[in-house]
This record gives sequence, C-alpha cells and structure tokens, in this order.
Amino acid sequence: MTEAINTNDLKNTVEKLERLEDEKAMYTEVVKEAYAEAKAKGYCTKTLKHVLKLRKKDRAKIDEEDALIELYRGALDI
Amino acid sequence: MTEAINTNDLKNTVEKLERLEDEKAMYTEVVKEAYAEAKAKGYCTKTLKHVLKLRKKDRAKIDEEDALIELYRGALDI
Amino acid sequence: MTEAINTNDLKNTVEKLERLEDEKAMYTEVVKEAYAEAKAKGYCTKTLKHVLKLRKKDRAKIDEEDALIELYRGALDI
Amino acid sequence: MTEAINTNDLKNTVEKLERLEDEKAMYTEVVKEAYAEAKAKGYCTKTLKHVLKLRKKDRAKIDEEDALIELYRGALDI
Repeated sequence: MTEAINTNDLKNTVEKLERLEDEKAMYTEVVKEAYAEAKAKGYCTKTLKHVLKLRKKDRAKIDEEDALIELYRGALDI
Repeated sequence: MTEAINTNDLKNTVEKLERLEDEKAMYTEVVKEAYAEAKAKGYCTKTLKHVLKLRKKDRAKIDEEDALIELYRGALDI
Repeated sequence: MTEAINTNDLKNTVEKLERLEDEKAMYTEVVKEAYAEAKAKGYCTKTLKHVLKLRKKDRAKIDEEDALIELYRGALDI
Repeated sequence: MTEAINTNDLKNTVEKLERLEDEKAMYTEVVKEAYAEAKAKGYCTKTLKHVLKLRKKDRAKIDEEDALIELYRGALDI
C-alpha cells in the first residue's frame, strides 16, 4: 500500500466492514438467544450442540466415531 | 429434563438452531470475503481490524490507551 | 498508574512475563508433540481428547451426559 | 487403528497426555498469576501484553505497522 491513501475509499471500506461485523454480531446474539430459549424449555444446550454437530456428519462417520469412543472407553473402564 | 422427550419439539428446536447457525456461518463468510476484498485492494486487514476496534472507543479511552503504550514503549526503548 | 514509570521495575516485570510465556509456549509444544506421537502410533487424537475429558468427570456426570445424548439421538434418529 | 486395542499402551498414552496437559495448565495458571501480580502493582495488563508482542518483532516490522496505523488513523480522524 503506498504511503498516501484514498481517504474516501478507506472510509467506505471501513464503514462496509463495520456494517457487516454488526450484522454478524447480531446473528451471534440471535443464536445465543435461541440456545437460552431452548435451555429455558429444559433442553441441555451442550447436548443440543453435540447433536447439531452429529447431524452434519454422515452415518459412516458417526458409526466410526462411536466405535472408537466405545473401544477407548471400554479399554479405560470409563 | 424428564427421561421422556417431546420428539417433535426437539426436532423443531434443533431445526431452528441449525437454521440460525447456518445464517450466522453465512455472515461469518461474508465478513471474511469483505476483508479479502479489502486486502485485494491493498489494504492491511490487521490495521483495518485495529481501526475498527478504535472506532468503537471514545476519544478519552483512545487517548488513555495511546498514553500508556507510549509510556511503556518509551521505558522499554521499543 | 501515574504518568511516570519505574523503568527498571517495568523491565523486570516484562522479562518475567516473557520467561513464563515462553515456558508455557514450550509446554504447549510438548503437548502437541505428545498427541502427534500418539497419532503416529495409530491413535485417534480426537477420541483421546474426548476420553481425557471424560476421565475428569465422575461416574454420575458421565452417566447423566450419556443418557441425555442417547435420548436426543434416539428422538432424532441419529 | 484395528478394532482391538493394546489396553496397556492406551493407558500409558492417556496417562502421559494427562500429565503433560496438567503441567501445561499449571503454567497457564502461573502466567495468569504473574499478570495479576503486575496488575496489583498498577500495571495495565493489556498494554503489557501489547509491548510483549512488540518485543517479538524487529524494528522494521514495528515501524511498518506504526506507519500504517498512523496513516489509517489520520485518514479516519481517530
């Protein structure tokens, strides 16, 4: 970047980034509220997050992970 | 949460959380792309993030931080 | 902190923090290498980390978490 | 990893990882205490962390970053 700078372009760039960061922060808040709502209904948020992760995996991947956990837990008496 | 669970309500809750997490992830991506765009235009993303943080602070807070940094850097010859 | 600063004390403080941060970084590296070693022996590091977490929990806590996961996974056919 | 597992080796591996993770956690605690001590003496921990980062950079890198920050802050009146 040369020493001089296009002030207007920098301002536009910064304001655009601010707008997008604010919108992202808003969505982060909306997600947080949705988990708080689920918790208030009696759901365990940790388990909800766990099953949400599992739902992004295919059956084979889930079975593989389940088998490994079972194997290690068995060997370690957990 | 009692042993039994309302399957429909759980499904609705999970699907709602998935939708919101996906939208949040989309915004995270949009922000990432905006920084990549700024970088492609020659901006330093690290400095952009720095000034975005500063713009959230009031003048007094910025002056206080600047004074402390100057004081410590001076004492440590940085 | 008053405007003036005790340069020697600041230097000592900074050097002590640097030493401790370096030692912490060294341990972080040692842990990383230990996981890499385990992986090279064929272990799944993700599952190792999972069982390490479980070993910090008591039996009742583990059973409670297992029951919730089973309940949610059953309801969601995962 | 084959379905069977060498239980002794797994136990040794897990116990070694636990030991190393505990030592790393201990160092994390020691660093936290050192910052708390510095804070109690009146130092600003945020500024301490800032100058610790600067001390890992060479003069040219620091000057480059200072120049960019000055350029952006000037253009944005911060």
